[in-house]
Amino acid sequence: MELAIQAADVRRAAERIHPLARRTPVLTSTGFDARAGVRAFFKCENLQRGGAFKMRGAANLILSLAPDAIKRGVVAYSSGNHAQAVAIAARHVGARATIVMPADAPRTKIDATSAQGATIVTYNRLTEERERIAADIVERTGATLVPPFDHPMIMAGQGTAALELLGESGPLDALIAPVGGGGLLAGCATIAKAIEPAIRIFGAEPESANDTYLSLRAGERVTAPHPDTIADGLRTPRPGALTFPVLQQFTEAIALVSEDEIRETVKYLLLRLRVLVEPSGAVSAAAVLFGKLPPGIASVGVILSGGNMDFAQLAGF
Amino acid sequence: MELAIQAADVRRAAERIHPLARRTPVLTSTGFDARAGVRAFFKCENLQRGGAFKMRGAANLILSLAPDAIKRGVVAYSSGNHAQAVAIAARHVGARATIVMPADAPRTKIDATSAQGATIVTYNRLTEERERIAADIVERTGATLVPPFDHPMIMAGQGTAALELLGESGPLDALIAPVGGGGLLAGCATIAKAIEPAIRIFGAEPESANDTYLSLRAGERVTAPHPDTIADGLRTPRPGALTFPVLQQFTEAIALVSEDEIRETVKYLLLRLRVLVEPSGAVSAAAVLFGKLPPGIASVGVILSGGNMDFAQLAGF
Repeated sequence: MELAIQAADVRRAAERIHPLARRTPVLTSTGFDARAGVRAFFKCENLQRGGAFKMRGAANLILSLAPDAIKRGVVAYSSGNHAQAVAIAARHVGARATIVMPADAPRTKIDATSAQGATIVTYNRLTEERERIAADIVERTGATLVPPFDHPMIMAGQGTAALELLGESGPLDALIAPVGGGGLLAGCATIAKAIEPAIRIFGAEPESANDTYLSLRAGERVTAPHPDTIADGLRTPRPGALTFPVLQQFTEAIALVSEDEIRETVKYLLLRLRVLVEPSGAVSAAAVLFGKLPPGIASVGVILSGGNMDFAQLAGF
Repeated sequence: MELAIQAADVRRAAERIHPLARRTPVLTSTGFDARAGVRAFFKCENLQRGGAFKMRGAANLILSLAPDAIKRGVVAYSSGNHAQAVAIAARHVGARATIVMPADAPRTKIDATSAQGATIVTYNRLTEERERIAADIVERTGATLVPPFDHPMIMAGQGTAALELLGESGPLDALIAPVGGGGLLAGCATIAKAIEPAIRIFGAEPESANDTYLSLRAGERVTAPHPDTIADGLRTPRPGALTFPVLQQFTEAIALVSEDEIRETVKYLLLRLRVLVEPSGAVSAAAVLFGKLPPGIASVGVILSGGNMDFAQLAGF
């Protein structure tokens, strides 16, 4: 089967997203390296506009819309970083954004998204399906759906994080990224393997939301029944139809981390790198810090994928 | 009186410190700008090696030492970011570093400095004077004293932060930096005024450690009797003999911020910029966020000077 994206798609995305997505810094920490026993290059997508890598994919899709599509607007379902990114990108091009969010989503997230000018449509998580609501809006208005991960433009956009990282770090033995639906890792793996065919690709998941780990082992997409983790951005129950074949092609292994390891890593990154990384964004660093990579890796690119979290949650860590 | 440094000293420092000091990122936040009513460009010295701008001055002085001076080692007195910076820079050139620290300094700070290979000499804060202890070591060993701020090489090194900032931000209406002993602001003002003569220069101090504010008003160096603030890096009781004339020459005003404003700003920068800035490093941003700048300023460079603090302290904010 042909994969949904190629390296050239990521390179095109890098040119397209420039007006909206920041080139985020790459940080290093001798303290982290000494403790982890590997030289780590942290790609700080927590410092991305909107606070997460999601801006890259949303920008890539929305900046490629034709004028008449922009007039009809965009729709997304998300209670998190993807919602904010879609709202910011839509506002930038002058498209109306409708975001479908659970009625019980945290008030701060609803407010942050609506502050970007998006229209929020809430639904009852127990009785309604968000995909259906979004599809209804698309049918009624002709708006373009901006899916959270399973779309070639989204995957290619997310891959620009690895393109920038490798441009700054130079050759690396390995690359690791958090895996929710797999859009970030699929895009990053595609471009990284094109630049350095020998680079070893890893994903990171919470032990309690290990759908991609299970799927890769099974050789087919498996649903993890009740993903429950503080890494709320990684609660996706199974990898995407388009992302999974890419992950199968390129991923050597998925490293699993515990909830305690995630919490400790968030604190460690805060105090040693002096950046705020949300639990979902820190699973990649947790895997490195807690020795989940196989031997023989001297340098690793680590995608820190987002930095949106409550102060109260952090203070409790 | 001739000032202790000129813009050319800062430019030379920028070439010299390159092996040791990072070019730190400049971040922006549309949320901050909207709330503060001004476009802010944050120079993230909290992401500097060692976690503070202090690396710049220490690197500038220590990298300019002759081989025989390196053999005799360096001495510094500091319980904070300057100690760490001197230890890191000394280790880099292979010089022995002796750091004079109060015996009751936080264990974590002593450990962090000694982890960099420095020899720690402790003293009793109530009965001994650190300057005297350091002078004794210099006399006995021929080591070079690396003062925390009142030295041309230190001032010139700190100024490289503003040189990098203006190179990235483009022209700015104003620049603001925290003021302890005044080395950072003196260096930054010197180079900023040389690049943009019309730029307006501001310092920021805690209301409860306002020695430079008082000194500029008095037209001479004044001692603030008992500086007491959570901004522990700014408890210096009076500006330096060399830094003060530079501040007099270039500074339009010192903005004063309350302890509550500092705490709120640390939290705001954490959640909106997603970076950890210690209280001392956040007074500049606090002054902007709480409207302490005069009218007529549309864009401002804000030096976030450091990011070293305890998790427990942060969690209590």
